[in-house]
Amino acid sequence: MTEQTPLAIIVLAAGKGTRMKSDLHKVLHPIAGRPMVGHLMASAAELSPQRQVVVAGHGREQLEKALGGSATIAVQDPQLGTAHAVQQAEGALAGFEGDVLILYGDVPFVRAETMRAMIARLHENDAPAAVVLGFAPADTLQYGRVIAEDGRIVKMVEHKDATDEERACRVCNSGLMAVRSADLFGLLARVGNDNAQGEYYLPDVVNIAIADGRTCAVIVTDDADEVAGINSRAELAEAEGRWQLRRRAQAMADGATLIAPETVWFSWDTVLGRDVTVEPNVFFGPGVTVADGVTIHAFCHLEGATLSPGVHIGPYARLRPGAKLEEDVKVGNFVEVKNTVMHRGAKASHLTYLGDAEVGAEANIGAGTITCNYDGYFKYKTTIGERAFIGSNSALIAPVKIGADAIVAAGSAVSRDVADGELRMVRAEQLVKPGWADRFHDAMKKKKAEKRG
Amino acid sequence: MTEQTPLAIIVLAAGKGTRMKSDLHKVLHPIAGRPMVGHLMASAAELSPQRQVVVAGHGREQLEKALGGSATIAVQDPQLGTAHAVQQAEGALAGFEGDVLILYGDVPFVRAETMRAMIARLHENDAPAAVVLGFAPADTLQYGRVIAEDGRIVKMVEHKDATDEERACRVCNSGLMAVRSADLFGLLARVGNDNAQGEYYLPDVVNIAIADGRTCAVIVTDDADEVAGINSRAELAEAEGRWQLRRRAQAMADGATLIAPETVWFSWDTVLGRDVTVEPNVFFGPGVTVADGVTIHAFCHLEGATLSPGVHIGPYARLRPGAKLEEDVKVGNFVEVKNTVMHRGAKASHLTYLGDAEVGAEANIGAGTITCNYDGYFKYKTTIGERAFIGSNSALIAPVKIGADAIVAAGSAVSRDVADGELRMVRAEQLVKPGWADRFHDAMKKKKAEKRG
Amino acid sequence: MTEQTPLAIIVLAAGKGTRMKSDLHKVLHPIAGRPMVGHLMASAAELSPQRQVVVAGHGREQLEKALGGSATIAVQDPQLGTAHAVQQAEGALAGFEGDVLILYGDVPFVRAETMRAMIARLHENDAPAAVVLGFAPADTLQYGRVIAEDGRIVKMVEHKDATDEERACRVCNSGLMAVRSADLFGLLARVGNDNAQGEYYLPDVVNIAIADGRTCAVIVTDDADEVAGINSRAELAEAEGRWQLRRRAQAMADGATLIAPETVWFSWDTVLGRDVTVEPNVFFGPGVTVADGVTIHAFCHLEGATLSPGVHIGPYARLRPGAKLEEDVKVGNFVEVKNTVMHRGAKASHLTYLGDAEVGAEANIGAGTITCNYDGYFKYKTTIGERAFIGSNSALIAPVKIGADAIVAAGSAVSRDVADGELRMVRAEQLVKPGWADRFHDAMKKKKAEKRG
Repeated sequence: MTEQTPLAIIVLAAGKGTRMKSDLHKVLHPIAGRPMVGHLMASAAELSPQRQVVVAGHGREQLEKALGGSATIAVQDPQLGTAHAVQQAEGALAGFEGDVLILYGDVPFVRAETMRAMIARLHENDAPAAVVLGFAPADTLQYGRVIAEDGRIVKMVEHKDATDEERACRVCNSGLMAVRSADLFGLLARVGNDNAQGEYYLPDVVNIAIADGRTCAVIVTDDADEVAGINSRAELAEAEGRWQLRRRAQAMADGATLIAPETVWFSWDTVLGRDVTVEPNVFFGPGVTVADGVTIHAFCHLEGATLSPGVHIGPYARLRPGAKLEEDVKVGNFVEVKNTVMHRGAKASHLTYLGDAEVGAEANIGAGTITCNYDGYFKYKTTIGERAFIGSNSALIAPVKIGADAIVAAGSAVSRDVADGELRMVRAEQLVKPGWADRFHDAMKKKKAEKRG
Repeated sequence: MTEQTPLAIIVLAAGKGTRMKSDLHKVLHPIAGRPMVGHLMASAAELSPQRQVVVAGHGREQLEKALGGSATIAVQDPQLGTAHAVQQAEGALAGFEGDVLILYGDVPFVRAETMRAMIARLHENDAPAAVVLGFAPADTLQYGRVIAEDGRIVKMVEHKDATDEERACRVCNSGLMAVRSADLFGLLARVGNDNAQGEYYLPDVVNIAIADGRTCAVIVTDDADEVAGINSRAELAEAEGRWQLRRRAQAMADGATLIAPETVWFSWDTVLGRDVTVEPNVFFGPGVTVADGVTIHAFCHLEGATLSPGVHIGPYARLRPGAKLEEDVKVGNFVEVKNTVMHRGAKASHLTYLGDAEVGAEANIGAGTITCNYDGYFKYKTTIGERAFIGSNSALIAPVKIGADAIVAAGSAVSRDVADGELRMVRAEQLVKPGWADRFHDAMKKKKAEKRG
Repeated sequence: MTEQTPLAIIVLAAGKGTRMKSDLHKVLHPIAGRPMVGHLMASAAELSPQRQVVVAGHGREQLEKALGGSATIAVQDPQLGTAHAVQQAEGALAGFEGDVLILYGDVPFVRAETMRAMIARLHENDAPAAVVLGFAPADTLQYGRVIAEDGRIVKMVEHKDATDEERACRVCNSGLMAVRSADLFGLLARVGNDNAQGEYYLPDVVNIAIADGRTCAVIVTDDADEVAGINSRAELAEAEGRWQLRRRAQAMADGATLIAPETVWFSWDTVLGRDVTVEPNVFFGPGVTVADGVTIHAFCHLEGATLSPGVHIGPYARLRPGAKLEEDVKVGNFVEVKNTVMHRGAKASHLTYLGDAEVGAEANIGAGTITCNYDGYFKYKTTIGERAFIGSNSALIAPVKIGADAIVAAGSAVSRDVADGELRMVRAEQLVKPGWADRFHDAMKKKKAEKRG
């Protein structure tokens, strides 16, 4: 039943975020590789909202670019308080009838199940006009309180206006609220700004409804962290830390060994298999999928990469978007792989750059190999055949194909295709100057002594 | 006297380890680079046991491979409880007379001194039939209790069967037990399985002995961490963390500076000298010995390497097994050294791979040097003489010898030996095409504009 | 008024530092890249002392070298206690009249404001003969106590001599003291050594002054960490950790995003701008300045480098002293930059060594490029023009100039200047041996089989 009522979400994101000291809009600062508002909207998306409105102050362009068309941006200008901010969504919700969930772009980790519980409460038999999400922090600080009896709100009160008895109440107002669209804008229109700041406060909606004789409900989250707001880079780092802690625990529960879990960083979309071993200091950027039985040595940095079972990488492997490592591939130290498929069992063990390439199964890429994929204007592809052997310090000048079983001799710069089973050797004469080095040493030692003297 | 009684150890390792979600046997999961059961058996080895029996369920082959011939593997199949598990060792202990110490493969950090104390207690004047190791955790959770008076056990009781008074007892049963071989199997044979799980429980041995009028003793470890069991990857990580914490403290007490101790990982056998400085993020795999006065910069990864006094490595140095760095050697950033001796004062400062090589004293290996030690089938050796100077971006194609004081010019691929004091220069003509680049730029800019347009 | 009284500081640094187990003088062990005594003297320098005396025991030469001429070194030999140590400064303070502040080289993080408060207290109306800095640690341990009423000292008492009532006093003696020069040496001369150790203790100065009817004052720091002494590598690591914690918080408050603040290490002089993003595991050695809007990916190591707005570095970028990256420069993975200016928009994205070079604006340095700046005796400069394109795996053999818009073909070793707009291509014939690789594979497989068989 609840499921069938249409839902709209309003995400308030008009705060200036002054304490961030940033040109980037506060709600776009990333956590686990995703803008914080993206985490929030992903959770809300589990409830399939019909409309999504983000109320912005400054930084509208940044928000539009980041959100694409997924939400309507409403602008609050001037900024006259949270009730006023919600009012700015009225146009975007024209014609909408259903439930409205009011969220905050800088409170990004509210769980979908909490949102669902708020909506469900709205539809219980006592039909509350508003459902407020409360939380019970260890320290109630300056938070507004939700004075309630049996889950029904008696009064919303700001900390500074609260009596001692009211302050003893441990349930604080997270700011999140669920209201029916039919009630919301009428209540908002009645909120006044007769207070020290001259602002229109959202909690007044509740007090007005109660004065009307309506029921308003509070539900209290059991996890105060879920409603933690992010107002500074320090709080951003704390939120990132809490997120990583949960994700690491999940990775271990799923059967990955993290030798030092506190030094492994995941992104929001990292997929990690069973019997994966991760040594200390590994950074997963967005878009990484790691299959079962993969070993990731220390100091690896991965983004947009796919690792099949039995792959070994690192230490110091750097996988960039489009790196696709098939079964039993080995990528060793100081090797960068970008937009490259390495087929089963291929190896690039040392000091190599593979960009825009396809490497055949069981091919061996020698130390110091570089695919020269860029001429300053365009990028070109390098194709390396199965079981090909690329000698060390070779430059493969794309576009170029190296055949199956072919051998490129060490130190070669290869600019023309090499056929299957062919040896390509790009090597000049070895000039030999007996005694030259001895004479050089003598001359330079003399020069050095002169400089000193 | 106690010293002279022969000792056998039985290591129970038949648990399924389901929570590890792993194809690797639980007791083989490594901590500090060594399988957890290896830590346990190393401690037990300090007591010089005459026989060692590991009771396995699944994964017998993995255990046999890992333990080599150091222990007899007894198989428990089906698995009918801990008493039944110990019974499986009876065959392996045929003919043995002496003390038996029952240990657990997933309780790997019991100290040798604790084991010795258990054995010593067995030989005190009151001649207990069994000595149980108790521990007093901060939270007694669901642990079985050891009800005792003055160190003599009154009753072993499972948590679920315990009265409130018994539960108030803070001494819990670690499961470890010392028993004389003459008593053990007779007692085990009398253990029943009349309980909810239908299993044969080892603690019943104690209760049976007490019912016989025998004394059974408990000794209580002062370090509850010592008997922490490892049942999940999270507990594995915690055990690793505790181990590393102790090892780091030891390293500092011994005179090493760890700028950020929490980011230095040691292996079980790492040897670290005095006045060693370790910058943040250094990983010591097994087999590393570091002498006094060594500096290890950030982001180094070492395995099987030996560093003499005054060596400087890193940042980003990767030393693999067989890397032997003599006094005052310098290995710089993005340099990998494998199975290579670098003699006194040799330097490889940047972007280099030295594999299967011997580098003479004071030799200078230029940036981008690669020893081409592998032809896809076999490995070959590179020998570099004293004071030789290898120019940057050179490929030394093994087997090859570079003489003392020899110079290899930059960019050379050297496949033939270079004599002492000789210059080897492998370099083709420098083709000059004046204006070619300008014409190229014009053409490409045009092409790029066309593509856009 | 207080400002005008001349100030001398005496830094006691004669302790043996046995627990450090080091050949380096204890007070020279670095924290955040600076000797601990350097931190102390930098704070003291804010008070513009006219004279600075360091009282050394062993290691005088090390101290002289480290301090340069900034302080007079007085030697205490033999070492007969703290009062005796201060007496050794008498010669160095001959003719000095003013305030004397007694500090400790191994208590390096006393704040200038605390020092100022001590001096100011010395000049209050009750004109104390000595001002002692007290602290109130969580655990008073074995510290000497400062028994005082209303900030006036009644008695200085060693812990071992204290009554239970005195031990209940929570104010401990940090050892720091401010005294007028006119009082100091007279009081010191009256200190006796009639105690178990036969040492002359500095706190006795206070007790003697009190017995003379003089007022002595205590001020208590609100931050016990400020007077934490460093006596072991573990305490050194703790002090480093506390310093880093504060510095990270400051960086975030100033508008930098530290994804994992606990894995970013700053030096004492690091300058970091606003909207700087630092991924996990970045190490700032001394001398680094980072402008606004810079992105530093994971695993970077910086020393003596200057980064302009919009610069991107890493992951795995290593910037050494003299690296100067102008606006929008990009330095990628496994790239080392030393004593090199990279002008606006220049790029070195992979596996490169740039040493003693100047890189023109918008120049593109290909993967695997090495500036060969060293011939074993001298260093030479490489100059690369604007928009030049250096092909991959090139060696630029300094001294050499590459012109503007010039192109160096991949795999070239360039030893002669390249003109503007010129193509330089150093490349030998590509020898083609069709079928050779196939025959090689056959032969080697046979050989391998023979070896096995």
